[in-house]
Amino acid sequence: MNMTRRAIILRQRPVGPPRPEDFELITETLPPLKEGQVLTRTIWLSLDPYMRGRLSDAKSYAAPVPIGGVITGETVGEVIASEDANFAPGDVVVGPNGWADYIVSEARNLVKLDRHGPPLSTYLGVLGMPGTTAYSGMTDIGQPKPGETVVISAAAGAVGSVAGQIAKRAGARVVGIAGGAEKCLYVQETLGFDDCIDHRVVDLRSALEQACPNGIDVYFENVGGDVQAAVFPMLNPFARMVMCGMVAEYNDTKPRPGPNLMPVVRKRLRIQGLIVTDKPERFAEWRALAKPWVMDGSLRYREDVVDGLENAPQALIGLLSGRNFGKLLVRVGPDPA
Amino acid sequence: MNMTRRAIILRQRPVGPPRPEDFELITETLPPLKEGQVLTRTIWLSLDPYMRGRLSDAKSYAAPVPIGGVITGETVGEVIASEDANFAPGDVVVGPNGWADYIVSEARNLVKLDRHGPPLSTYLGVLGMPGTTAYSGMTDIGQPKPGETVVISAAAGAVGSVAGQIAKRAGARVVGIAGGAEKCLYVQETLGFDDCIDHRVVDLRSALEQACPNGIDVYFENVGGDVQAAVFPMLNPFARMVMCGMVAEYNDTKPRPGPNLMPVVRKRLRIQGLIVTDKPERFAEWRALAKPWVMDGSLRYREDVVDGLENAPQALIGLLSGRNFGKLLVRVGPDPA
Repeated sequence: MNMTRRAIILRQRPVGPPRPEDFELITETLPPLKEGQVLTRTIWLSLDPYMRGRLSDAKSYAAPVPIGGVITGETVGEVIASEDANFAPGDVVVGPNGWADYIVSEARNLVKLDRHGPPLSTYLGVLGMPGTTAYSGMTDIGQPKPGETVVISAAAGAVGSVAGQIAKRAGARVVGIAGGAEKCLYVQETLGFDDCIDHRVVDLRSALEQACPNGIDVYFENVGGDVQAAVFPMLNPFARMVMCGMVAEYNDTKPRPGPNLMPVVRKRLRIQGLIVTDKPERFAEWRALAKPWVMDGSLRYREDVVDGLENAPQALIGLLSGRNFGKLLVRVGPDPA
Repeated sequence: MNMTRRAIILRQRPVGPPRPEDFELITETLPPLKEGQVLTRTIWLSLDPYMRGRLSDAKSYAAPVPIGGVITGETVGEVIASEDANFAPGDVVVGPNGWADYIVSEARNLVKLDRHGPPLSTYLGVLGMPGTTAYSGMTDIGQPKPGETVVISAAAGAVGSVAGQIAKRAGARVVGIAGGAEKCLYVQETLGFDDCIDHRVVDLRSALEQACPNGIDVYFENVGGDVQAAVFPMLNPFARMVMCGMVAEYNDTKPRPGPNLMPVVRKRLRIQGLIVTDKPERFAEWRALAKPWVMDGSLRYREDVVDGLENAPQALIGLLSGRNFGKLLVRVGPDPA
């Protein structure tokens, strides 16, 4: 079978904030399926801050997208054709498939989804990579204890919203940091955080002192920049800093200075990074744990949906400046019949 | 019993490097012993970089020495009189007793030493607080594996020399950083490190690249400053940074910027501080483990001895600028008869 597809490729490496002309929508012919491969039609494409790293050729934990290559991204799709015994047309799968409307994948990279459980989009958000990142960060590094104070930046985002709800379930006092009054209201009222600070307020440090009268025991770091600078001096002895991302700095062309590390000694801080794929077993663990919570409505999430593959570049550009509100998804095609 | 003693007190808080006039040698009368107290005659006084922190009133893990107070410090001493059933005159003890030639201590703070084992001074160095710090840092945070590359700053010092030898025993490639050719020779030839870099060389980064062709998996941080800045970019994925001290910055009047923390995410670094007293059980553990190694000569150490309590301030000033060579000790009085 030979068919054409639409895909978005990297035209040139962005310097600073990505611009639409760094991307290109192309039409190309897909090769026939080989043994062990599966053809899927994309339903949902996930957009996540880590993608900014893939557009750069700076050394990182994963290879960059090559110039002319399809941009990396997780998708949920419907199987159209299969040369693998484990998948059949009509199956719905999630996998690391890229920005395209039809995709040829190796079957071993796909996970089959339950069509009658939570909405399929949740497997890219609250039940997918971002949710698992929050779970892994809190389980392996943050380890909040009852009564401790946990601060979460980008608290309304796909990772932060889950990280905070996990910390609440652990009995901690949870304070979010988000951009703007609307997001803060959502973080407090819907997600159930104890407090939320708008990082656009004039004096973030004073606001943090008011919201965290007993200092900070766990900081789940998603943004870096001025927020990190305000949080760092407030960390308590033995505090843990879960280093998940620093989206406020992803478009920087040279790195900003960081905090002087002497408090790490004095306060015995633990600052540790994670990439969710390091512990692949966490994905299934988290899906099993959180699926009932999504079904019964006790684990809250919000999605920000953009329609049409062609709008993915502009949506990613917005994500990197905090314009999304909730898990950012592109609806590439309709749900299965 | 009423007797006089000599002690060194803090006259004023140093700003920047301490100066001799910040200290004062006084003579004072000791109060009579109360129930549970022990009077000791000081034989050895330990001088350690952490003492700089006690001279400041900046918030830290331990209260500062008050103006007019005796400076903090571990000592080995001989019991002269005792109002506690566990100690008798002639016993030799180690404890956190301060810069003085006679000391009244609470018995519960003292540990009785074996007079017929290793030299008494070693209980302040290789078998004491600095050795235990190295052991605790390597055991709880560094965790070097066979074949990994471990870099130790202040490698000729009391902590670094032990940290490196522990890493060698764990099968790692161990590279020291020290100040000057003589110290580097000692680190390689006597301590048995695989390599040692003189941080006074023009291009520390190139020297590190040459000495660590496979990058750095564990960095045992004792100095901070330019050495930290050169090491940080060379940390491998999943590297551990044992934050023990930053002596090159202790005299700074304002903190220098630190490294941008984005590599902590990308490389999943773990940066963690320790204060040896957090895990008091490590002291006895390390003494039991290392005593045979000190006795059989397989664990090497070097002492830098200054005679006379009155010379302690000048010796501490020198320690903070790296003028000592080996564990710095003040001989306050003769060994027991």
